[in-house]
Amino acid sequence: MTMTDQTMTRDQYTFWKEIEVRWGDMDSMGHVNNTVYFTYLESARVEMFRTIGITGRQGNNSQGPTLVSVSCDFIQQVVFPAIVDVGARVESIGHRSFRMSYGLFLHGTDELVATANSVTAWIDYAAERSVEIPEELREALGKYQNKK
Amino acid sequence: MTMTDQTMTRDQYTFWKEIEVRWGDMDSMGHVNNTVYFTYLESARVEMFRTIGITGRQGNNSQGPTLVSVSCDFIQQVVFPAIVDVGARVESIGHRSFRMSYGLFLHGTDELVATANSVTAWIDYAAERSVEIPEELREALGKYQNKK
Amino acid sequence: MTMTDQTMTRDQYTFWKEIEVRWGDMDSMGHVNNTVYFTYLESARVEMFRTIGITGRQGNNSQGPTLVSVSCDFIQQVVFPAIVDVGARVESIGHRSFRMSYGLFLHGTDELVATANSVTAWIDYAAERSVEIPEELREALGKYQNKK
Amino acid sequence: MTMTDQTMTRDQYTFWKEIEVRWGDMDSMGHVNNTVYFTYLESARVEMFRTIGITGRQGNNSQGPTLVSVSCDFIQQVVFPAIVDVGARVESIGHRSFRMSYGLFLHGTDELVATANSVTAWIDYAAERSVEIPEELREALGKYQNKK
Repeated sequence: MTMTDQTMTRDQYTFWKEIEVRWGDMDSMGHVNNTVYFTYLESARVEMFRTIGITGRQGNNSQGPTLVSVSCDFIQQVVFPAIVDVGARVESIGHRSFRMSYGLFLHGTDELVATANSVTAWIDYAAERSVEIPEELREALGKYQNKK
Repeated sequence: MTMTDQTMTRDQYTFWKEIEVRWGDMDSMGHVNNTVYFTYLESARVEMFRTIGITGRQGNNSQGPTLVSVSCDFIQQVVFPAIVDVGARVESIGHRSFRMSYGLFLHGTDELVATANSVTAWIDYAAERSVEIPEELREALGKYQNKK
Repeated sequence: MTMTDQTMTRDQYTFWKEIEVRWGDMDSMGHVNNTVYFTYLESARVEMFRTIGITGRQGNNSQGPTLVSVSCDFIQQVVFPAIVDVGARVESIGHRSFRMSYGLFLHGTDELVATANSVTAWIDYAAERSVEIPEELREALGKYQNKK
Repeated sequence: MTMTDQTMTRDQYTFWKEIEVRWGDMDSMGHVNNTVYFTYLESARVEMFRTIGITGRQGNNSQGPTLVSVSCDFIQQVVFPAIVDVGARVESIGHRSFRMSYGLFLHGTDELVATANSVTAWIDYAAERSVEIPEELREALGKYQNKK
């Protein structure tokens, strides 16, 4: 029905962030609301950025990341209580932006609940436009690519 | 950088939902958080479904819609106070699912702030699997296709 | 059971903000989640502040409001679709803070769904401490007291 | 300015829930939004209820808890990244409702960031009214009272 690659396995991801599902993440259908998955992706991305040393505007930097696009394929409902392991990796690095992909698994299992993709641009905040990704950042992001 | 079609115009959408941006929709970057756009899409979709007569599980129906995938391209930041006009249309209707596309505009203008796409499956809640879209629903959804 | 004054009537409030309930405001109990009422209060407060001319840190001011405490008594469940009319008034104005009270009604009716109270301090952002409320602001806030 | 008892210490709480602050919990002021504290309280309460065996409507029970009122005093701003330890205890148990109080601390420290109180009623869902708290539940709740 969708182009979701349900064969994604944990070993294809290079960065991990555990998310404890909050009761309030569920909607009136009784499972985690689709919009909340994007906050899980955001938490994983922010954590990876912090590991690299990207703190964005909060760190009073003049440059930083901004999300350009994001998509998510929902494979399985998640119900509280649960922990979701968000696997992430850098997919490709362009001049002014980079792609990431994600696999969301039930904690400690190979059960995939969602896959996702994002494009992040590197932005000069004052100029409000994308700029060349600094070489140092390019190298740091490269470490999270799946080299296999 | 992305495949966003920034030439989308208001006349390409067949259903509209105005969303008043809440102050709390903004994140620490000072603009509407990317995850909140998906709640705007959800509100538009739910409203369109209600107009058609789809009430899902809340209406104690045995069948209803479930979101399979959704994506969003962010074109322009939105800052409170603002009203966002979400334009939606049915893109295509398959056997057990249908595609929708969306254009988010600053209220009353042609300024596009985001475009989005979604796939919704038609689900038998008890069986927990997608089923054939009923003919009556197919016709109702068809009215929101862009026939031009 | 609580000290909620369920006799509050609409004419006791001096400022109004209509809130359109979003489908996503509901939790897995199938009604608007208790934490969301606080975003409704926030929206009403921000709107009143904007009417007065208080823009806070976003307006690059050195002083602004910060919430010190807030409480809410839940009287009746709210289910989507609904519009909630949030009535607010300034209760009392101290040296460095002011009290507000709120009544949340089903749109256009006298049906009270919740009452609430808040204390807002006037803060010097750099010094990170409360300061004397400026005379001009004191007068502006005074207009929203219930003089009856 | 408020009646916050800033002398609350960790040993006064009988149940603990660690909450990892999400980046998205912050608002445009750059710290955790006041409304989000109430989701932290909710998470602690739900966890305590689950420990006791209260699963509410989700467990297909005919009776369960419903929040009647909640208040929070904000003592110190919280900024991501952070973990908040929510301490809770049962304050008093009435015929059809019980009071709880909470202290939110920066993880592993005595730094109090907020205190809170709530009243929860015991509800018959079908009858939509509060009913007598069952003896077994009364005993279970009693274990979380601060006996000192």
